[in-house]
This record gives sequence, structure tokens and C-alpha cells, in this order.
Amino acid sequence: MRPQWKTIFVSGGAGYIGSHCIVELLQQDFEVIAVDNFINSVDENGDAISLKRVRQITGKDVKFYQCDLLDTEKLDYIFSQHSIDCVIHFAAMKAVGESMKVPLLYYQNNLIGAINLLKVMKKYKCQQLIFSSSCTVYGNPKFLPITEDHPVGDEITNVYGKTKHFIEEMLKDVSTAEEEWNIICLRYFNPVGAHPSGLIGEDPTKPFTNLMPFISQVASGKKNVLTIFGGDYETVDGTGVRDYIHIMDLASGHIAALRKLEAEHLKWKVYNLGTGRGISVLELVKAFEEASEKKIPYTIEARREGDIYAMYANTDLARKELNWKAQYTLKQMCEDFWRWQTMNPNGYKPNDQTSSNSSSATASQQNNHKTNGH
Amino acid sequence: MRPQWKTIFVSGGAGYIGSHCIVELLQQDFEVIAVDNFINSVDENGDAISLKRVRQITGKDVKFYQCDLLDTEKLDYIFSQHSIDCVIHFAAMKAVGESMKVPLLYYQNNLIGAINLLKVMKKYKCQQLIFSSSCTVYGNPKFLPITEDHPVGDEITNVYGKTKHFIEEMLKDVSTAEEEWNIICLRYFNPVGAHPSGLIGEDPTKPFTNLMPFISQVASGKKNVLTIFGGDYETVDGTGVRDYIHIMDLASGHIAALRKLEAEHLKWKVYNLGTGRGISVLELVKAFEEASEKKIPYTIEARREGDIYAMYANTDLARKELNWKAQYTLKQMCEDFWRWQTMNPNGYKPNDQTSSNSSSATASQQNNHKTNGH
Repeated sequence: MRPQWKTIFVSGGAGYIGSHCIVELLQQDFEVIAVDNFINSVDENGDAISLKRVRQITGKDVKFYQCDLLDTEKLDYIFSQHSIDCVIHFAAMKAVGESMKVPLLYYQNNLIGAINLLKVMKKYKCQQLIFSSSCTVYGNPKFLPITEDHPVGDEITNVYGKTKHFIEEMLKDVSTAEEEWNIICLRYFNPVGAHPSGLIGEDPTKPFTNLMPFISQVASGKKNVLTIFGGDYETVDGTGVRDYIHIMDLASGHIAALRKLEAEHLKWKVYNLGTGRGISVLELVKAFEEASEKKIPYTIEARREGDIYAMYANTDLARKELNWKAQYTLKQMCEDFWRWQTMNPNGYKPNDQTSSNSSSATASQQNNHKTNGH
Repeated sequence: MRPQWKTIFVSGGAGYIGSHCIVELLQQDFEVIAVDNFINSVDENGDAISLKRVRQITGKDVKFYQCDLLDTEKLDYIFSQHSIDCVIHFAAMKAVGESMKVPLLYYQNNLIGAINLLKVMKKYKCQQLIFSSSCTVYGNPKFLPITEDHPVGDEITNVYGKTKHFIEEMLKDVSTAEEEWNIICLRYFNPVGAHPSGLIGEDPTKPFTNLMPFISQVASGKKNVLTIFGGDYETVDGTGVRDYIHIMDLASGHIAALRKLEAEHLKWKVYNLGTGRGISVLELVKAFEEASEKKIPYTIEARREGDIYAMYANTDLARKELNWKAQYTLKQMCEDFWRWQTMNPNGYKPNDQTSSNSSSATASQQNNHKTNGH
């Protein structure tokens, strides 16, 4: 019997997925050491606002360091101060559109960040890792639903997705070379929703391209109309299809992966985290209308070149090996997102900092792997 | 008319390909700023022995800095001291077998080295680059001869090759994002031979896996017998086939690429550098026997799994667009290698540092993309 794990290091802990995952970790009585550089999150005097809310939700503490993974000295210091059992590596630049404009910055932050983390983990003999990967590594699907053995690396048209793929390859190679490594890559499909308390949720600091925030902005009147690109795909209603997964399901998937690594030496293993169910843009719009009790006006425009018409996971492997499956319904995803949005119209920013209005929202991203971060 | 280029920065300038390329650059009256960290080369009091020989061959000077590309401060200093027109980036860890054993070191050195170089180039607005890539990016050939539009990135089974592929992708992405970049990736096939003077040549500091050095060690009596894996491939004589190219042809290929970049804004472009002619192991052995006037005993063993049976370039694009083609014969490749080996039995090391003998040499590498650096 291997000793039970106690302390989990979470990079990117203040971000959308990181903060929700930390709620679950704390509720499972893990001690959490979180780091973030606030590129994708908001701080108040050097502490993460999202993690203050996490403490409020759980009644437990999170140890937090403001640290960029490029700062190898500080990273080393943190590892020297704690006996870490496992690392969950969320930290990454993730704005797909931006990644095409400043690729060198993305390669630098994501690749060098990962290399630095692996080096410090090796130095402190903490070689258990859960890596935050993405279904973008599959590129344009060759078959549906997508199993974990679907080819990866072909036709990844954005730099964000390439960094995820390259890091997966690195992780595979280090685990092949050195027996000590025990790594799970989780390939997320489309995380949406928020913690049911409405206290934490997605608060993009960069121009975002995910569908649900756009829909929500139309529902709240911040934008007038949703533009949907492609209404004649071979899908249930002609619009693009994605596998939306509630963020709390994603968080519990990380706990399941952690328990797996705790119990078994896998070396390197990949699991999809999705619901296995494809939802069309119009289905999502309808569900959001019901949850928000608001009308979402939309227009349907022509398809755009390069857009993927449908993408959803085969989730058999996670169900079988991690004993995990998504529980939340589409209705809950919409209700929880709407609650978060309503309670925090400006995200984590104080209410006097309103964001600028624009006249329309586009929903191209839900059927476009170019502009879809997860 | 764009201004003519004068000063070329060469990373990995003390290495096998770098040093030969610098001979050509100097003979074309370029000023050369070379850097090297001596991982793959030998120094004498901080100066590169190979570059001392280059000065002897050309009667011209090379400015040399001992500098690792991970040392961003020193790299910045060097760029601040010179007005650089173009960079040729050879520096990389390149021992294929080693790359599988210490992948993190390879990812760190090759990827971070490239990222650091791109950053300093951008800072100093020197965004012209020739990148030393490799036919390993093609993986297992889907057709022969290999054109530049052959798929890349599939089935690259070694970390060395993956780093080359990842860097190519980075270069493509930065050149797509920023108009200023002007980049040529040269995909080398199998560089062999040495400068006809016998003063510079390949002096591996790591256990090497290339065929010609092995053959040469058998010819010189350092090893007893050459083991060839696979004698029943569908090739001219059943043994594996590669596209060997004389190092001086490779060097002149870089000059042709430099002239192309000097004249045109290509953004990002790839050229194969090979002869276009596939040579079998036994053909190479026979040519080497003739050049060295030595008998090369060999045994033929079973094929090994994963070995590529044949790989050679389609060279039309370089001929058409760079106005370059390989000139040296197989005989010259063997003669020049043998001259270098005979004149420098211990490479650049003093003669009292003899290397240890072993009883046999293997020729698996020439038909194995797993163990074939170029």
C-alpha cells in the first residue's frame, strides 16, 4: 500500500479551471499549494480573488504564491518549502486567437513553463503530474466520437493547441526515459458553467472566443445579437456541435485522475474529459434561454473555412479506468453560468470597472477549432 | 535593391556542419560571428580548435564567443556588439540515442535555445534566419524521393527529431504572425565527408551512430567488423538506403539559401539538402574500401523493427529556387572523410588521448531513423 497523498501543487490555480479544481481538492482534504502569475486571473494585493472565494466556499485555506513558471528561482523556493505529492499543471496562456498573433510569447510561456516545472519536480523527486491538455491536440477529427487513440498533432491550426501537443509529447518522452514519472494528460473538451454557489466562474482577462460567455452577454443585454457561422452542417440542426462539460465535472475528473495516480504507476496515460454528448449551437442557445429566461437573438451566417463541424468525446476509458463520468446536465451548465454572470457582471473586477459594449457577439468559435481554447 | 549582407551570426559554429559552413562564408567575404558551448565540439583555452583550423584554411578571421544559447544575457551582449544581417542556427544537441535517454535536457537545450535566439533576434531587429533542420522531421517516408511537401511530424520516434520538428513549427508560426521574419529551414539528409584539406571534419564528442565514422573505424583497424542490420530490403542489394551528401555541398547549400534570403522576402520556406541519390550500405562500404584501400569486413544481421529501409531527397526545389545542387561524388565523400580521419585519428583531441577500442561496429543507423541524426 502506497502512502496516501496529502499536498497538491497547482499551477495556474487562480484561473477558471484551477480554482474550481481547488474547491474539489480542499473538499477531499488535500492541502493545496497554488501558484499563478495573474496573466489569466485577477489579484487583489497579490492574492487571487478567485482563491479568496474558494476559501469562502470551502471554509478551508489555500496556500498561494504569486509566481510565474519562468521564474525558476521562486519555483525552486516553493518546492523547497513544501513536501509535494503531486502537481496539477494548469498554467498556460490559452487565448487561441492571441496565440496566433504572438506565437513566440505562447511558445515561451507554455513550453518553457512546462520544462521549468518538470525540472524542479525532478529535482525534488516529485514526479507525479496531471497535465491540463485539450481536445485541440486531435486537430480536425478523423472519426467521432473521439477516442484517446485518435491521431494527434495533425492539422492543429493554432499555436495554443500546438503547445499542448508539444508538451504532451515531452511528457511521454520523459516518462519513457525515466521510470519515476507518473503522468496523466487530461484532454478537456469544452468546459462551461461555474460553481453552483455563483462565487467563482470564468472571468476572461483576454478577448474570449468561447460560446457560452458570448451567449450570456447577449442574454444580459451587453451584446445585441449572436452570430452563428454555419447553419448547414450535417448535424441535428445544421449548426456546429461540441461536447460541453460542466466545470465541476471537470474538477471531479481531476480528483479521479489524482486517485488513479496515487494508486497506480501508469508512467504516461491520456484520458478524455467530456460528456460524450454532442450539443449543437442552437441546442445550447435554447438551453441558455430557458435557464436565463431571456431571449437570445441570433443570425446564421455562412460556414467559415477551417471550422470543425463537430467534435465530441468517447468517454469510455475515463469511465472504465478512472471510474468517473460527467454528472451535470446541460441545464445545470447554463443555470450555473448564468448565476455566476448575474452575481458578478464584471467577473472578479469591482463593479465600477465596466467593460465596453459592442453591438454583436459571434458564435463562430463553437464550431471552429481555430478559436476554441478547449 | 536591398543592401548586401555583411555579417552572419552562426550558432554552433564550432561543430561539424557549422565549421564547414563558416569556411564557405569566409570565402564569400562574409564576416562571421560564431558562438558555441562546446557540448559537441572541442576547445583549447576557450577557443574552438575547429575554428582555428578554419582560420588556417581560409587565412581569414572568425570572431568567436563561447556562449550557450540558454545564457540570455551573454547572447544579448553579443547581439548588442555587432550589426548582424542574418543568423544561421546550427546549435543543438544532436545525439539521437542520447536524446531518448535524457529528453528533458534535449527539449530544454534545443527548444529554449531556439526561443532565446528568436527573442534576441527580434529585439535587435535581425529577423533573417537559416535553420538547421533534418530529414528526420519526415518520419517514416510515405513516398520516395521525399519532396518538401511530404507530411512532417508523424512517427518521429526520437526526441532529437521532435525538437527539429517543433522548432520548424515555431518558425512557421512566428513568420505567419510577424511580417518581418524571413526564414529558410534546410532539411539535411545524411551529411558525410570533410573539408578536402583534411584539417576539419566530424569529431563526435558523444557516442556516434552515423555510418561513415563506423566504417572508417573498421577501415582503420579500431574496430574489427561492421554489423549491417537488414540485408533483405527491397533495395538494390538488400541493404538500407540513404542520401549521403558531402559536407562541402551542404555548406554551399547554406550560401545559396543566404543569397536567396538576401534577395527575397520569403517569410518561411523549406528546402531539402541532399543529392537526390540513394546509396545502399554496401555501396558505401565498397566506395570506402576503394578510397581507403582497406578491406572492410562486415556481417549482415536481421532487420530491426522500426528501421526505415530507404530515404532520399527530391532536390528539384533547391535546384530550381536556390540554383544549387550537390556536386561532390560518393568517392570524394569517402576520400575526404578518410583523409580527415587519417590526418586526425583522434579528431581535434591531442594524439595522446586515444579512445577506447571495441570489438565491432554496427551499421544499423544508416537504415534506422531512430538512430540517425541527420
